[in-house]
Amino acid sequence: MPQLRIALAQVDAVVGDLEGNAKIVLDRCREAAAQDAHLVVFPEMMLTGYPIEDLAMRASVIQASRELVETLAVDLQAQGLGDLVVYVGHLDRAEGVADGPGVPKNAPTNSVAVLHGGRVVAKQAKHHLWNYGVGDEMRTFVAGHTINVVQVHGVDVALAICEDIWQEGPSAAARAAEASLLVVPNGSPYEANKDDVRYDLVSRRAREGDCTVAYVNTIGGQDELVFEGDSIVVGPTGDVLARGTQFAEELLVVDLDLPAATPRMPDPQESFGGLRIQRTIVSSEPLPAYEPRPAEVRDRLDDLGERYFALVTGLRGYVEKNGFRSVLMGLSGGIDSTLCGAIAVDALGADRVFGVSNPSAWSTEHSRSDAADLADRTGLRLDTVPIASILDSYEELLELEGLAEENLQARIRANIWMALSNRDGHLVLACGNKSELATGYSTIYGDAVGGYAPLKDVPKTLVWELSRWRNAHAETQGQQPPIPEHAIAKPPSAELRPGQLDSDSLPPYEVLDAILDAYVDRDLGYDDVLAEGFDPEVVKRVVALVDRAEYKRRQYPPGPKISRRNFGRDRRVPITNRWREHA
Amino acid sequence: MPQLRIALAQVDAVVGDLEGNAKIVLDRCREAAAQDAHLVVFPEMMLTGYPIEDLAMRASVIQASRELVETLAVDLQAQGLGDLVVYVGHLDRAEGVADGPGVPKNAPTNSVAVLHGGRVVAKQAKHHLWNYGVGDEMRTFVAGHTINVVQVHGVDVALAICEDIWQEGPSAAARAAEASLLVVPNGSPYEANKDDVRYDLVSRRAREGDCTVAYVNTIGGQDELVFEGDSIVVGPTGDVLARGTQFAEELLVVDLDLPAATPRMPDPQESFGGLRIQRTIVSSEPLPAYEPRPAEVRDRLDDLGERYFALVTGLRGYVEKNGFRSVLMGLSGGIDSTLCGAIAVDALGADRVFGVSNPSAWSTEHSRSDAADLADRTGLRLDTVPIASILDSYEELLELEGLAEENLQARIRANIWMALSNRDGHLVLACGNKSELATGYSTIYGDAVGGYAPLKDVPKTLVWELSRWRNAHAETQGQQPPIPEHAIAKPPSAELRPGQLDSDSLPPYEVLDAILDAYVDRDLGYDDVLAEGFDPEVVKRVVALVDRAEYKRRQYPPGPKISRRNFGRDRRVPITNRWREHA
Repeated sequence: MPQLRIALAQVDAVVGDLEGNAKIVLDRCREAAAQDAHLVVFPEMMLTGYPIEDLAMRASVIQASRELVETLAVDLQAQGLGDLVVYVGHLDRAEGVADGPGVPKNAPTNSVAVLHGGRVVAKQAKHHLWNYGVGDEMRTFVAGHTINVVQVHGVDVALAICEDIWQEGPSAAARAAEASLLVVPNGSPYEANKDDVRYDLVSRRAREGDCTVAYVNTIGGQDELVFEGDSIVVGPTGDVLARGTQFAEELLVVDLDLPAATPRMPDPQESFGGLRIQRTIVSSEPLPAYEPRPAEVRDRLDDLGERYFALVTGLRGYVEKNGFRSVLMGLSGGIDSTLCGAIAVDALGADRVFGVSNPSAWSTEHSRSDAADLADRTGLRLDTVPIASILDSYEELLELEGLAEENLQARIRANIWMALSNRDGHLVLACGNKSELATGYSTIYGDAVGGYAPLKDVPKTLVWELSRWRNAHAETQGQQPPIPEHAIAKPPSAELRPGQLDSDSLPPYEVLDAILDAYVDRDLGYDDVLAEGFDPEVVKRVVALVDRAEYKRRQYPPGPKISRRNFGRDRRVPITNRWREHA
Repeated sequence: MPQLRIALAQVDAVVGDLEGNAKIVLDRCREAAAQDAHLVVFPEMMLTGYPIEDLAMRASVIQASRELVETLAVDLQAQGLGDLVVYVGHLDRAEGVADGPGVPKNAPTNSVAVLHGGRVVAKQAKHHLWNYGVGDEMRTFVAGHTINVVQVHGVDVALAICEDIWQEGPSAAARAAEASLLVVPNGSPYEANKDDVRYDLVSRRAREGDCTVAYVNTIGGQDELVFEGDSIVVGPTGDVLARGTQFAEELLVVDLDLPAATPRMPDPQESFGGLRIQRTIVSSEPLPAYEPRPAEVRDRLDDLGERYFALVTGLRGYVEKNGFRSVLMGLSGGIDSTLCGAIAVDALGADRVFGVSNPSAWSTEHSRSDAADLADRTGLRLDTVPIASILDSYEELLELEGLAEENLQARIRANIWMALSNRDGHLVLACGNKSELATGYSTIYGDAVGGYAPLKDVPKTLVWELSRWRNAHAETQGQQPPIPEHAIAKPPSAELRPGQLDSDSLPPYEVLDAILDAYVDRDLGYDDVLAEGFDPEVVKRVVALVDRAEYKRRQYPPGPKISRRNFGRDRRVPITNRWREHA
């Protein structure tokens, strides 16, 4: 059988940085060539980054991407890399599609170009537009109608783009076209356990298509989305031939033995399932036999480790890609801000992380000592600005008590963080968790203040689990656990009035999070939630809290999605909404 | 020709209030029957309100809507209204469509049911899903594949649902089916000049279909969207037979002479353009001749009046549907908050509007006197809480100057508004305009604070125009102009440092707004903006400001869309985005 050495470029493309992304392509192609690879595959929408949302419809962006992919082919050739066959995702335009109602402006396509010998030798646009969950591709793209089969060193290579492989069709098409390799560039966001689902899918498609599947995913953080990489090569029997690292850039080089292409006459009518099959021959001669190298099959992270690194990757992406030097957060000594501090130190290094303790009259002694302990363990910088005198200055002018007074304390703290941010250029982090955000148990313009919210999609029970995981992980590495045990063990409190505990206002977090998983993550109605065995009064209370807090969530900063259904891109419900799940 | 008296129910359905919306249907049907109407048409998604976003995919909501439409038919009959033929928009489920990737969960449809004689006699689901601009229907609905023709008193009546009529097809289908009346229930949001576009469209479809078109639109505010009504009946020659009021509920009753249906044998294979034609005969006998009544053709508002009432309608909808008793806003004496105050008084009445003046050391005397003048003219309640002592209390603890100090003043004001909101239950209004939001010329967690932002989609130059329009409108009504002339005439200033003017930081508003119209509303790239004749340096500066302020816009409250492209549902770009229009 002919051999082929392929390189999967699992890289972090930055949205909108077309020149920078092209440089990544050149650099990784040079690296692939140095390792004698023949074919290199980059992720979906490599040149623009992914997702670019409505930028896909702007004529200037389309034009730039179309020109750049041609320039890139020339540059590769000029750098002596013209022999490589390079698959590059980019933004293209479907010619001949008129604009009009229902057709995205400028008829953009989510395309992949195949570069070789200084030219674009083939182009294919995504067939199945991703339009559920966090995907909105029917808004911005038109679908493609060709299947491109490129013959490389005597091997027929077919192409499917991300969502295409989640739908029926591409492996049948590859089989019909008698391709023995199916390359799949992706921008597939992380969510818990998706790596298992993804492996099952890729493996099934390989068996269905009787072909090898090379699945390349991007990595990095982009606003609410985190990409984990997890690129994978699966043989026609469904066995894993290579698998990339999670949450890191990598060039995964894999040697394959692939059935030779069937010699055939050109047939302009060739099609499958309504898609036209376009064939391009780059080289029909198999390579002389060479000694294959063993490929990497990286270990998986465990379930908690995977989520922890997703949070780190999301925060790092937001900070670095937006050019912030440092982050600042309020450190209350509570477990949410403590875990945020640990994540920030892991993402950025301790010298870029600033904490502020803002004790009030109701703050406990341990709120200060736990924050100080975190600073000692991690090396982050901790300052203290007490708020009692500022609160007094408001209360000299306004008569306040109860909730109004409690919230004002949280807002004074936020003013201090924002003043320090304005003065010193820090990005402020909001440290609230998903359970709070779901129930509205947070102060808008108070603890909800920030440019990014690392724990936005992390329920409170998972906050504790991740904290314990992080400490245990440190121990396996022979390092000091970053998170003070007392911050994990103490009962949660907002400390906005004397002796206040979260359990005064909310059901126990174990119960709350289970109900939220049913009502929010799985979108069940009242009867279906009840059927899982919860107390009806508690369910009613939780559902009412969630429904009433939608306005707060709309003004909350973005944070990394790690669950099946995050607040933000995933769950889209009206604010003005009188629907109640129970009468 | 047979006669038919139709009633267009231009009503305000509340999202999620299924029982309340069903009661509106019963009440309006009683009113229509009292006026001897034969056929009543309600807007798109009448029973659930529109748009319901992801609620469309929740099984409990679908089930409730499906059951309610059946109950409603029985209730109409029980109330002696069974002879009416009633078109009611509702959420339905497509039977036989499997769930899976790319198919919305529970296969919901945007449907219209035809009720008569205590039963649902026909159902049709929308063919063309609205998926551009502020529409996301491909996310939540599956498309229908039937055209339902219902014969009523010897007249064949066809149906198209909102977006269907914007696409080619429905009038050709009506013509092919030989229907002489096409009813079109809509949930078509307001934007400037859309009434003219809508009239042209409806008129063209009537001529193409050689039929009368009865276009019924909802009215009211729903989060970012405002519906203006503007229901219209157009004859087969394109002439307007009746037209409803803008921005008010109304039952528009119209007598029509319509060609009689052609007698035909049932044909289960009848179809057009891939859609199956389903015929239902409610009554084939034409009515005995009766004396027709003249129909209303209401005057149009002028361009500014239309926008003003859109803002009033949007605010009123948000306040009433969310159950707020009152609104509160900071009144700086500037034109933005002054116009907001006038809009709030028009929307809610003066006794529900509270203003707070928060003078600082840098506030001018006229900032107080202009706010007091507004209060005198409109009757809204004005309180004063100075902020200097509070600012001092922060500055005793933090060394701040420049931007950090300026922003802190705005945030102290916001804390005071929120404390009063928490204490007294007011909805806080953010008074910023679209030009500020575009350029980031506002303080996040400061003047950007609020639950609703009436001027979010109003550029600064339009703020002045609307203020002048409102005063002139008062004069035509013999009332005192609500807006102090000095607030309109004075140069705009944030008053966050001595002598500060907006023109220190921004280009003149006439220039700025023209560039924003090109870059934001029309989504042009740099070269295309320049081609309109602006100074390149000014364009670069404005484009850079817009690009950098995306993070602030994401945390801004919702406000009513009145332009072709609002910040929010319409313009969706990444925060993390290195694309720059100029190199």
